[in-house]
Amino acid sequence: MVSEKVGRAVIGIDLGGTNLRVAGVDPEGRVVHLSRDETGASGGPEAVLKRLVGGLRSVEDRLRVSGWDVVGVSLGVPGIISRREGVVVSSPNLPGWKMIPLLDLIRERVSLPLMMENDANAALYGEFWMGAARGCRTAVLMTLGTGVGGGIITDGRLLRGADGMAGEIGHLTVEREGEPCPCGNRGCLERYASAAGVARRYRRLQEESSGNPSPEGTTATAVHSLALKGDVLALRTFREAGTCLGIALASVVNIVNPEVVIIGGGLLPAWDFFMPSAREEMFRRAFQAPAERVGLLPALLGDQAGYIGAAGLFWKEGRGA
Amino acid sequence: MVSEKVGRAVIGIDLGGTNLRVAGVDPEGRVVHLSRDETGASGGPEAVLKRLVGGLRSVEDRLRVSGWDVVGVSLGVPGIISRREGVVVSSPNLPGWKMIPLLDLIRERVSLPLMMENDANAALYGEFWMGAARGCRTAVLMTLGTGVGGGIITDGRLLRGADGMAGEIGHLTVEREGEPCPCGNRGCLERYASAAGVARRYRRLQEESSGNPSPEGTTATAVHSLALKGDVLALRTFREAGTCLGIALASVVNIVNPEVVIIGGGLLPAWDFFMPSAREEMFRRAFQAPAERVGLLPALLGDQAGYIGAAGLFWKEGRGA
Repeated sequence: MVSEKVGRAVIGIDLGGTNLRVAGVDPEGRVVHLSRDETGASGGPEAVLKRLVGGLRSVEDRLRVSGWDVVGVSLGVPGIISRREGVVVSSPNLPGWKMIPLLDLIRERVSLPLMMENDANAALYGEFWMGAARGCRTAVLMTLGTGVGGGIITDGRLLRGADGMAGEIGHLTVEREGEPCPCGNRGCLERYASAAGVARRYRRLQEESSGNPSPEGTTATAVHSLALKGDVLALRTFREAGTCLGIALASVVNIVNPEVVIIGGGLLPAWDFFMPSAREEMFRRAFQAPAERVGLLPALLGDQAGYIGAAGLFWKEGRGA
Repeated sequence: MVSEKVGRAVIGIDLGGTNLRVAGVDPEGRVVHLSRDETGASGGPEAVLKRLVGGLRSVEDRLRVSGWDVVGVSLGVPGIISRREGVVVSSPNLPGWKMIPLLDLIRERVSLPLMMENDANAALYGEFWMGAARGCRTAVLMTLGTGVGGGIITDGRLLRGADGMAGEIGHLTVEREGEPCPCGNRGCLERYASAAGVARRYRRLQEESSGNPSPEGTTATAVHSLALKGDVLALRTFREAGTCLGIALASVVNIVNPEVVIIGGGLLPAWDFFMPSAREEMFRRAFQAPAERVGLLPALLGDQAGYIGAAGLFWKEGRGA
């Protein structure tokens, strides 16, 4: 029996610090199959690679059985990567990953064309292709998660810079002599407008107001719940985070003149608590014309953005590394 | 007698707040004729337009007489412009210019294809085509003049943004609650790392140290002369300006990951006094890999960058508006 092909698919992979998502994506951006696993990052690179290749093979098999022609694999990878060489230079959320030649390691086990991209760029490309930035030519993504990721598309193309390291909006200085950041800078946006930054700031405000050390383990989600109940310190925390975000938005708007800035990541549910002050601060600081032009929009694709975008980049840029 | 054509030329125009330069530029970037005039900006738009069209016609005639085939005109214009419509939205250095349909006004008097670009973008394109960024794919220009202009080229193309207003690096916030800027923001790079900013800062330091008001009219050039003689306040002024420049450089390097950042403008002769602290601050704040990658280079083309770049954009992007 000759099996009839239903169409072509690319396997898009979102390799996160916690979750590993492997999906089949068709040329129209439809997710035709999805598999989820934990990354198991604490096991180190070899253990992660094993899960990754396992997930990849299983999705490949499932797609082929259903009649899909699998044409390639595209990964979104967190951290600093050397895209062309397929190497993960370093990755804060993947312990032990230093100069890991990821694509070569996969290539030893899987014979499909491969490519990879920074995870924030992949997510932005997903929103650009199928989500909140659809139809735009110039778009910026800021993901307010554990850290603050960023990506920029100008004239329909990812701004990658000389070595694919561009777009680190999370490390814009918003407070010249502010909190030290693990990146080496002080006062980075990421220190104030990330989930971790919100949790930290809330604890500090609470300590100052009560005089007692605040319990560890307060999360941004908990601060959000408190804000929903009207907790004054929680409201203030989000307002201040928004103000810092607004300072960075003004710089981004003046430098990139984007049609949209898309806000994603774990802080997104608290949008109503940080966006008013962010918007106000952006208008106070940015040039009027680009500030009035830009749309500030919530991300639409959520957890799907990474693998859809990775696959989209393969469809666009083709043959792989 | 049939005149023999020596080749094709574009007329590149640098319309500055003070100087008006009109040049014939061939497809290889050679300046085959140059005419200079004062802009006469205080006379308002109509007077400037008269000089501009006069200079343009005279250069066109000279080129034709010498056998050049003049194929178009390309202008570098200061301020906020609407490039596609050929309109000067506003221009701090050209009094009275508000929503001036510059290309339409020229078109009434000159029948050549026309285009225009922001002056900093034109200068960057000049350096990219024929100057310090030659051979690069990703480059940034910062001109430290009366203000601080900026431009970005990624992947060989000007980053123009949604409306051609991108690249305003001079209005990056480097001091959250810093000096108010006429743009509406506070603590813009331009307040500290421009010629005007240096002069202002020096006067303030002098007043603080002497207790007497400092005479108006101290220029950055005068502060530079004092620095050359070892004047402590002048040295400190440039060091501080460099530190602010370094904060902005770190953000630019993290966001754009450029091969080179080219520094131009009136402060350039004082390079040795501000660049050491700028470089140091950039390395302190930026990610290591893109900071080590970037070359910080002085602009090469000086006054020529604007008209060479404007002409180069015509050669590259063609038929005009």
